[in-house]
Amino acid sequence: MTALVLIIVAGALSIVYGVFTIQSVMAADAGSQRMQEIAGAIREGAQAYLRRQYSTIAVVGILLFIILAWFLGPTVAFGFAIGAVLSASAGFIGMNVSVRANVRTAQAATQSLASGLDLAFRSGAVTGLLVAGLALLGVSVYYTVLTQVMGKAPSDRVVVDALVALGFGASLISIFARLGGGIFTKGADVGGDLVGKVEAGIPEDDPRNPATIADNVGDNVGDCAGMAADLFETYAVTVVATMVLAAIFFAGQPILTSVLLYPLAICAACIVTSIAGTFFVKLGANQSIMGALYKGFIATGVLSIVGIAIVTWLVFGGFGVELKTSSGATFTSGALFWCAVVGLVVTALIVIITEYFTGTTYRPVQSIAAASVTGHGTNVIQGLAVSLESTAMPALVIITGIIVTFKLAGLFGIAIAVTAMLALAGVVVALDAFGPVTDNAGGIAEMAGLPKEVRKSTDALDAVGNTTKAVTKGYAIGSAGLGALVLFAAYTSDLSYFTSNGAAFPYFQGVKIDFSLSNPYVVVGLLFGGLLPYVFGGLGMTAVGRAASSIVEEVRRQFREKPGIMEGKDRPDYGSAVDMLTRAAIREMVVPSLLPVLSPIVCYVVVLAIAGKNDAFAAVGAMLLGVILTGLFVAVSMTSGGGAWDNAKKFIEEGHYGGKGSDAHKAAVTGDTVGDPYKDTAGPAVNPMIKITNIVALLLLAVLAHF
Amino acid sequence: MTALVLIIVAGALSIVYGVFTIQSVMAADAGSQRMQEIAGAIREGAQAYLRRQYSTIAVVGILLFIILAWFLGPTVAFGFAIGAVLSASAGFIGMNVSVRANVRTAQAATQSLASGLDLAFRSGAVTGLLVAGLALLGVSVYYTVLTQVMGKAPSDRVVVDALVALGFGASLISIFARLGGGIFTKGADVGGDLVGKVEAGIPEDDPRNPATIADNVGDNVGDCAGMAADLFETYAVTVVATMVLAAIFFAGQPILTSVLLYPLAICAACIVTSIAGTFFVKLGANQSIMGALYKGFIATGVLSIVGIAIVTWLVFGGFGVELKTSSGATFTSGALFWCAVVGLVVTALIVIITEYFTGTTYRPVQSIAAASVTGHGTNVIQGLAVSLESTAMPALVIITGIIVTFKLAGLFGIAIAVTAMLALAGVVVALDAFGPVTDNAGGIAEMAGLPKEVRKSTDALDAVGNTTKAVTKGYAIGSAGLGALVLFAAYTSDLSYFTSNGAAFPYFQGVKIDFSLSNPYVVVGLLFGGLLPYVFGGLGMTAVGRAASSIVEEVRRQFREKPGIMEGKDRPDYGSAVDMLTRAAIREMVVPSLLPVLSPIVCYVVVLAIAGKNDAFAAVGAMLLGVILTGLFVAVSMTSGGGAWDNAKKFIEEGHYGGKGSDAHKAAVTGDTVGDPYKDTAGPAVNPMIKITNIVALLLLAVLAHF
Repeated sequence: MTALVLIIVAGALSIVYGVFTIQSVMAADAGSQRMQEIAGAIREGAQAYLRRQYSTIAVVGILLFIILAWFLGPTVAFGFAIGAVLSASAGFIGMNVSVRANVRTAQAATQSLASGLDLAFRSGAVTGLLVAGLALLGVSVYYTVLTQVMGKAPSDRVVVDALVALGFGASLISIFARLGGGIFTKGADVGGDLVGKVEAGIPEDDPRNPATIADNVGDNVGDCAGMAADLFETYAVTVVATMVLAAIFFAGQPILTSVLLYPLAICAACIVTSIAGTFFVKLGANQSIMGALYKGFIATGVLSIVGIAIVTWLVFGGFGVELKTSSGATFTSGALFWCAVVGLVVTALIVIITEYFTGTTYRPVQSIAAASVTGHGTNVIQGLAVSLESTAMPALVIITGIIVTFKLAGLFGIAIAVTAMLALAGVVVALDAFGPVTDNAGGIAEMAGLPKEVRKSTDALDAVGNTTKAVTKGYAIGSAGLGALVLFAAYTSDLSYFTSNGAAFPYFQGVKIDFSLSNPYVVVGLLFGGLLPYVFGGLGMTAVGRAASSIVEEVRRQFREKPGIMEGKDRPDYGSAVDMLTRAAIREMVVPSLLPVLSPIVCYVVVLAIAGKNDAFAAVGAMLLGVILTGLFVAVSMTSGGGAWDNAKKFIEEGHYGGKGSDAHKAAVTGDTVGDPYKDTAGPAVNPMIKITNIVALLLLAVLAHF
Repeated sequence: MTALVLIIVAGALSIVYGVFTIQSVMAADAGSQRMQEIAGAIREGAQAYLRRQYSTIAVVGILLFIILAWFLGPTVAFGFAIGAVLSASAGFIGMNVSVRANVRTAQAATQSLASGLDLAFRSGAVTGLLVAGLALLGVSVYYTVLTQVMGKAPSDRVVVDALVALGFGASLISIFARLGGGIFTKGADVGGDLVGKVEAGIPEDDPRNPATIADNVGDNVGDCAGMAADLFETYAVTVVATMVLAAIFFAGQPILTSVLLYPLAICAACIVTSIAGTFFVKLGANQSIMGALYKGFIATGVLSIVGIAIVTWLVFGGFGVELKTSSGATFTSGALFWCAVVGLVVTALIVIITEYFTGTTYRPVQSIAAASVTGHGTNVIQGLAVSLESTAMPALVIITGIIVTFKLAGLFGIAIAVTAMLALAGVVVALDAFGPVTDNAGGIAEMAGLPKEVRKSTDALDAVGNTTKAVTKGYAIGSAGLGALVLFAAYTSDLSYFTSNGAAFPYFQGVKIDFSLSNPYVVVGLLFGGLLPYVFGGLGMTAVGRAASSIVEEVRRQFREKPGIMEGKDRPDYGSAVDMLTRAAIREMVVPSLLPVLSPIVCYVVVLAIAGKNDAFAAVGAMLLGVILTGLFVAVSMTSGGGAWDNAKKFIEEGHYGGKGSDAHKAAVTGDTVGDPYKDTAGPAVNPMIKITNIVALLLLAVLAHF
């Protein structure tokens, strides 16, 4: 109980940090009238988006709440509500801070690069720590209520189901926020460019274009709220899955309570170290912004090793304590500590690899820039080559991580490594949420006509923001893949728990599952799962195209009905353009988001009808792994490839191969356009898609266990 | 023995058909002096390519022959040599017919569309029937020699190993021909355009450009020789794997000899029906070329059902004969017949789906054309969306095929379905080899300045050639995926055979393999296998870029050293340009082609060192399935996407969205350039890559069984 209280205190600490930081950010100078006007338009748009998005999700959410309450009881349904509400809150608060910090960052940049960086980073840190803090609070408080207040045993099925439902609630927000946000932002980007630059002949970021504000809104809803929801979900789901594994592996063992606490304790320790890490972000003498950010990141990582060592000692009472699973396997608490360290190392390696593939100083990006000289086609060919190649190293890192942690502490070791990886989510999201703030700040500086030196500062911040966004996406997909593997392990473990306790769960009586690769239904499941990320990705790409067309029509309508807009006499209706795009985005994401929710159920029912229960369970399990497998490669290739295209354009704009306006630059712009929906819509949305498939399968088992 | 003789006679029949058809093709009018000059240059180039390619492969081949002879004995090594030599011969003869038929087709088109079609199709049919005939002869003759002459039992390990080695020999040629040919043809295409059209300002297909001939050579080496080697390999490997499965499943059963004969008999029947089918290719009153080709294809399919019914009755003595496997499972000979029918239906469905995704009359291609209006970026985005989406339907067809055939006759049923699918290779390759002939004919007509009406005929033939090339690629990857699944089944069955006969195979004594998805080494294997097609695809795309640069330099050198070329006074050195490109292509393919050969060995050794034999075998098995899984999706998306891009350009050239020269057309040209290495290099080369990984694993088992 004391341990749980301490964990909850750590979670609460992040809220306290958030409140204080929000106050300090808001206290900063919000700049001139003109700047505030532009920022106001962005904020107005963001609010219009959130209103529409949350009212849509609410309908789906209430429906699912009722379904869950019906099948699994109110306690489980309530867990679902907690996950959904907290995830939505993290995104909501983070985005609201972000749309206020942007203009203040632009203003701070008029003083110095250091103060611009400071403000942007602190506002990002609010989102980051709220994501980690609220997720930890949600899981730990509800777990405390279930076990201490309601008096249920930690491994009681209601506890397990309620926690899984909490993860599902987070997933629901996540897929909406990621896919909807992604379609929104890239629809605005592509559509706004087409109608503004090409048709109306007004420059980019011109406030007369109603879609330009939508573009800035998109940065916030995609990279801030979308990423926040995504990592909130991965965080919550991973902790939950690790606890589910612990409940199954250590069922009936005296050590069970400690093992259940351990993932929560790791997360608690890392929230404290993440807060500490934010204070290391200071611009050094070399004026390297990336260096300042990495200082904070590295400090958090190193402190986290110490922190995890301490909680390992506190939770288990030492490093040599022998932990015995129900099946008789043993490993020490020290082995679990090393698994957590492996998780941190995997995080570091994925960051380094992503930076290699998307940074302007390395071969991949430069090869795309060089290929741009010979035209649009060769740029895209080389970009696709880089995108394909970029998958190998992260996959090898994940493979090595799996092998090492499995050798150390079995499947549970893998889960602990992923938990440690996710425990850094606070600081990683902080780095990412920094991106849209500086991006917006650059736009505001440009639109408000601030002096050249200011723009130089905001441009420098913006460029770093692009890199951090790419790096965070690499981390998000790597952790999502590993998190999904833990969910998959939870599925197989759950299944073997139900089948070996057939008396208590009559539906599973006599069920004997052959997960062997030589079972054709396993192959069928793998193939079926494997096709989902492809279809999902294809639908996402198409949706961006259609959303862009709809924004083109909306902007044309406004120009037609209010001719004063072009002369600067009439104010464009930003809210209507944004609302219109929001509706288009949400409509476009219905079919794709149904895919992962319905697929496990369809797969189960179809194979059940053809081949019976045994093969149906095997096919669904294989389907989960199939989704993870191709999903990982599709997502990594898309996010890395997109980032590389983006920075190849930047590399040329820095003056290489003819610089801005050259033919090479035009080709690089094409690559960048292609990369946009790759890296900001389809690729990142694969993360929640992978996990929803897995979590729906877990809930399917829970429902069947009630029959 | 009588049955074997009949099978060999059927194989020989295809040779007889080939000889007669070659004579009739060669007897046709070879056109004017000018036409023969151009065709001579193409032929000269093709010979230069083959010389270099085969001398390189010979070195590797002799090395592998020695290794196989050392580890597995001369009988096995001799099987390898047979596979390699026959596969090379099919490509060699086919390409030599093709480079002679091109000019004759152009000449025939001066008379009528019908006679042009007739000549092009007959030359394609030579390649097609040689592929099927030589593959069937190779397997059946060597099997006869082994069992009848050398007196070995049909399920003797030497027989099995020798047949697998035969498949490996074919695979070796296949990966060289596919990847090398793909890099060659697209390097020439992209490089030739850059240096000719952009730098020298001479039109496409101008005989003064040394790379233009290389481009025409490329059509032959890629789509004729490359495709021939690819399908020869899939054909041989599938038949072999089906026989290996039969030898294991029916070991010691009285029915064994019949079951072993059955796949050979299906192939024999389909060679006869394929020959019959070629006579149905006749231009109807509606002048539809595609209709004429489909008439032949459909006739072959329908006749094949009858043919397979007859051989089923001949081999087993009826449809109700009960077949009992060694493990006690039973199914009827009629069930096997239905499995074969399923294989034919799968073929038909994949052809229809591929045509839907790559035909100009359907939504996918038209959506890419429509997206071209708004620029290069939107064209590529929509093309990528189509390429991703195009994977779902083929995967669902394959899934359904697996389930239905497994329900009918277990794993062996799946193998029979794939055998039937491949048995149609003769007529399918005929449709494909038709493509480069008409493509070349169009080029020759253009270069030789034949009258407009002739060009109209050759253009119509060329357009159909593009569709048939896309359709064949869909068939090739679909059958490769299914063929690889049969190989995978052979791996698991082989493994369980060795482990359950531990006394005879001491290395496998006590080995107990857990292929379950909950074994982390299975997950590791799946991930490792999954990354291979991505890396391979990425390397292939990059290689095309580099080969294109090398051809640019070669052409520049020739222009510099022989200024007379541009004035038409000096003849460019086509052979040197081709030889240069061949060396570049072969150099570029070393690393990619090492990947599938070394990966199973590396995977085995590494996991062996870490976790021991059990998990090493499990990891390798999972790796095989991982390669198949992502390989299938990567290859389908690349070939369909590339075909769709190509035809979107054609659709615009037909006059839609502004037609030739419009901005939409320029964007569509970009998409086509991107699609070129997608559909002609990386995508198709994934087929042999998948199978080599699987066949090397089978050989690895054979080698370990000797320890």
